[in-house]
This record gives sequence, structure tokens and C-alpha cells, in this order.
Amino acid sequence: MSEVVKSEFGPNLWNMWFTEFNKEGVGLTLKVSRVLHSAVSDFQRIDVIETEEFGKALVLYGSIMITEKDEFVYHEMISHVALHVHPKPSNVLIIGGGDGGTLREVLKHQRVQSAQMVEIDPEVVEVSKRFFPAVASGFGDPRAKVIHDDGARFVANTQEKFDLILSDSSDPVGPAQVLFQQTFYQDAFNVLNDDGIFVAQTESPAFHADNVRKIYKNLSAVFPTVMMYLAHIPTYPGSLWSFAFCSKRYHPLEDFRPEYGNITGLDYYNADIHRGAFALPNYVKALLL
Amino acid sequence: MSEVVKSEFGPNLWNMWFTEFNKEGVGLTLKVSRVLHSAVSDFQRIDVIETEEFGKALVLYGSIMITEKDEFVYHEMISHVALHVHPKPSNVLIIGGGDGGTLREVLKHQRVQSAQMVEIDPEVVEVSKRFFPAVASGFGDPRAKVIHDDGARFVANTQEKFDLILSDSSDPVGPAQVLFQQTFYQDAFNVLNDDGIFVAQTESPAFHADNVRKIYKNLSAVFPTVMMYLAHIPTYPGSLWSFAFCSKRYHPLEDFRPEYGNITGLDYYNADIHRGAFALPNYVKALLL
Repeated sequence: MSEVVKSEFGPNLWNMWFTEFNKEGVGLTLKVSRVLHSAVSDFQRIDVIETEEFGKALVLYGSIMITEKDEFVYHEMISHVALHVHPKPSNVLIIGGGDGGTLREVLKHQRVQSAQMVEIDPEVVEVSKRFFPAVASGFGDPRAKVIHDDGARFVANTQEKFDLILSDSSDPVGPAQVLFQQTFYQDAFNVLNDDGIFVAQTESPAFHADNVRKIYKNLSAVFPTVMMYLAHIPTYPGSLWSFAFCSKRYHPLEDFRPEYGNITGLDYYNADIHRGAFALPNYVKALLL
Repeated sequence: MSEVVKSEFGPNLWNMWFTEFNKEGVGLTLKVSRVLHSAVSDFQRIDVIETEEFGKALVLYGSIMITEKDEFVYHEMISHVALHVHPKPSNVLIIGGGDGGTLREVLKHQRVQSAQMVEIDPEVVEVSKRFFPAVASGFGDPRAKVIHDDGARFVANTQEKFDLILSDSSDPVGPAQVLFQQTFYQDAFNVLNDDGIFVAQTESPAFHADNVRKIYKNLSAVFPTVMMYLAHIPTYPGSLWSFAFCSKRYHPLEDFRPEYGNITGLDYYNADIHRGAFALPNYVKALLL
């Protein structure tokens, strides 16, 4: 009897779907159980939705930033590649990364003595602490420091020097736009030590070809070594995501030292993936010419 | 004035969207300009839709088989890996592959003297010739032969021996179900020469974990060498697709000979991709234990 009532008047009568349109004519559609949070901060619209297949998702500006189920791919891949190349990554700077996932991965390396995160929007950090505690787990680490400032302004003004800078920005719309400009890349170059490495998330080569072309042109005008690597992230546009490994001295493959990390419990990154991620399909290579 | 009329009464008043649900709670949504063909053959429902982002798409059983824009990934990757490992792939058998894309790629290798394709559904071949001439371009080659039969029955009964068998099946629902069973794999093994290679499309490790586990268990019960490799196909479920390289003698990396093909004009496959495709994320490796 209660089954009948449920199907006639209960939640079975409706479905909620979230579609993120990655381009005008293509989107990812996810079944939503609940909308947990919707707010507009000083910088952007912030939503947290609970999806059936990917768990909770943090949505900024209408774009999925992380989901509980596949955030590990992005965060492992933006962090561990450079951390297995740089011999002494003592001082790390994260630009953006408000959810804390990149910080969490960086702090897995005992050789990291300081990890500063410059996130423009304090509300993203608060929302992550509240809804994604497993992602925000690094904020309490004594080596971590969170600064709420514009990342581009921070690197333009800081007097510090860094061994590694990770640009964990949102897409080049809204507050993150400046983080894809040559000025920012030049400032990042300037605050890196002589053997420093800069890694940036650089959008989808499958769906953002024009953006990718521009970003790599900007990066190549600044860094002597710029190499793209790829990862598969189901909930990101096109599911194929690119990162730029930019370096003053080290080569991501020749200077790769699997023993640097000695980390267990990762779900995506391993030594084969480190090497294989730099293999680019011909159509992606063509974007970098 | 004509603009007003158009927006009030013309095509601007509606949008058509196609969503393929890869799992219950997640789908790929594509804007559709036109439905070009809808029919039910003796074996399955066949649709051809024109999408704004991926061009024409062939849809069997409600699943996208190919789109004009990204079919190259699947067809290059199911074909060229083994063809750059086997030293003398004279006699090739394709199971399924009715659209002709795999045949087209196989025939790019001059060392292939005969390529037989066993496709159960003649209507798929006809639809491909009509709507996807660039995919169906190999059917006229004198080395090509199309047989309309059940692929599993064909390998169980043939007296021929093959150097390479490519299992280019649709998903393990409907007519292709038998092509994921151990009986079929054993029959394929039996009709391969002593140094033969068998390659199969083996679904999405991101979205079909249980299927993938079963398929590799079945394959490993038959072939001494079974190695998974991956490719990124935007319009396939999860966009991460797996293939099994199964072999009696050759190793896909140790016996890789980039010079075998000497093929230009590919959009995905290259020597780095050949090696990198065998690098598996930890969560994918875990499916194969």
C-alpha cells in the first residue's frame, strides 16, 4: 500500500537532471538527487548538487569543478607529475584550487615544507570544507597556508621564490580569465627558483581547441620547456583534460624519478601513467604547432 | 520581417536533443539538426542523426556507434596497434564492424592481402554506404570481402586460418552479446595461426566496470597474453574506451615495430600513443586483478 502511495504522490513522480553544456551542441547530463547549496559569492555562483552517479558535485559558474567520484584524477594529475620530477620541491604555491584537492595531494609529499594556496574566493573554501571534507582534508596541515587574494596579483607582487607553482584555476571565463594570460605566466616564471616548475590546467583539447592553442602560445613565449600531458576525467568537457608542464630546467620524462614520491593509495597516477600521459594523439599535437 | 516570421513560426521555435544514457544517471546530450534515417532491421533499430557538434551519427540499439567527427579514434586504435606488432598480417578477419571504418584502416596496410568482414546485419553496411561514404570507403577494395553471418558462428565453423582477428562489435546487449563470451574467444583462438593476434573492443572501464572485469576474465582463460589499452573517444560512454590485445606469441610493446605501417594521415595513432595507450590508471588496473 505504501508503495502505491509513494509512486502516486512521492518522489517517483519527478526526475531532476543537470546538463552542463560544454559547447552549444553537446553536454553532460547527470541525474540529480538533491541540490544541497546554491549561493552567489562576491565572485561567482556556487552550487553543490548531489548526483546519482558521481556523488556530490561542486559547480562554479555552471561548470562542474569536482565530483566526489572522479576528483581524484584531476588532483593527482595536476600534482604528482611535477612532484616526481623536481628533486627538492620545498616551497609550493597553488593558484586557485579552492576546494583543497590539489593541496591534499601536494601535502602527501614529505619533501614539501610549505604549501601556500592563493584562492580569490573564500566561499569556495568554506563550501568545500562543509560539503567535501575528504577533498578539504589538507587545510589543517601545519605546512599549509591559505591566502585569499587574486592569484595573478599575488604572483605579481610577492617577494618569495617557489620551487613549484600549480595553476589550479577554473575555466577562462569569470574570475580565472587572467590566469591564462601571458602576463600571469611571466610573473609565475619570475617568482620560480632557477630550477622551478610551473604546471597549469589547460582545458580540453577535444572541446576547447582554440583556447588550448592560445594558452600554449602564451606559455611557450615564457618557458623554455612546455609539454602537454593528458588525463581522462569523465565529468569534464570532452572527458579529456590537458595540463602544461612548464619548466626552467627539468624535463618531465628524462628527469622523472618514480622513487621521489613513494606514495601509496593513489587511484590514477603511477609510473606508467606519468610516461604515457605525455603521448599525444595527432589531432592534439596539431594544436601545439 | 522575414527574421520575425522565422523566429515566430520557423525552426527557431524548437530544439531537438538526443541524450544517450550510458548508465541510469548519466548521459551524453547532443543537439540534433535532423533525423536522417530510422529503421528496424532484422536485428536491431538503426538511426542516423545529424548532430551539430559531431556531424552525422550512426545509432544502433540507441547507442552511438560512430560519429563523423570522432570515428577516427576508435577505428585507428582497434586496427593499427596489432598491425604494428604482427610481422606478416596477410589474412585479417573483422567480426562486426558493419560501418566499414575498421576495414578502411586495415586496408591502409599494404601487407594485408585479404580482409574479410563478417557482419550479421546487411542493413548496417547499406546505411553506412549511404550516409557515411568516407567510413565505408574500403568496401570496394579488391582485398575486401563482406560476409553476412553471425560472427560467433563464423569462427566456430570456418576452415580458414587468420593472422589477425579484430572483434569490432557493438555493446554486449542485443546481437553482439555472444561476442563477449568465452566460447567465442576460444573459437577465435582456434582459427588464429600460431603467431596470431586477437583484438577486441572491450567497453568503458569508467562506466562498465563489471562488464570489463568479466570480459578480461573470459579472455585470460583463453589467451596467454592479454593486455588492455585505452583510447579517448568523446562520444562513447565515459569517453574512455578499452581494447584487449590478445596474442599467442607477440608482445604489444616488445614486438612493436613503428616502421611496419609507414602510414601517414592518421589523426590519433602514432608511436607514442601506441606505447602510452598501455599505461593504465590504478583504478583500471584494479579491474584486471
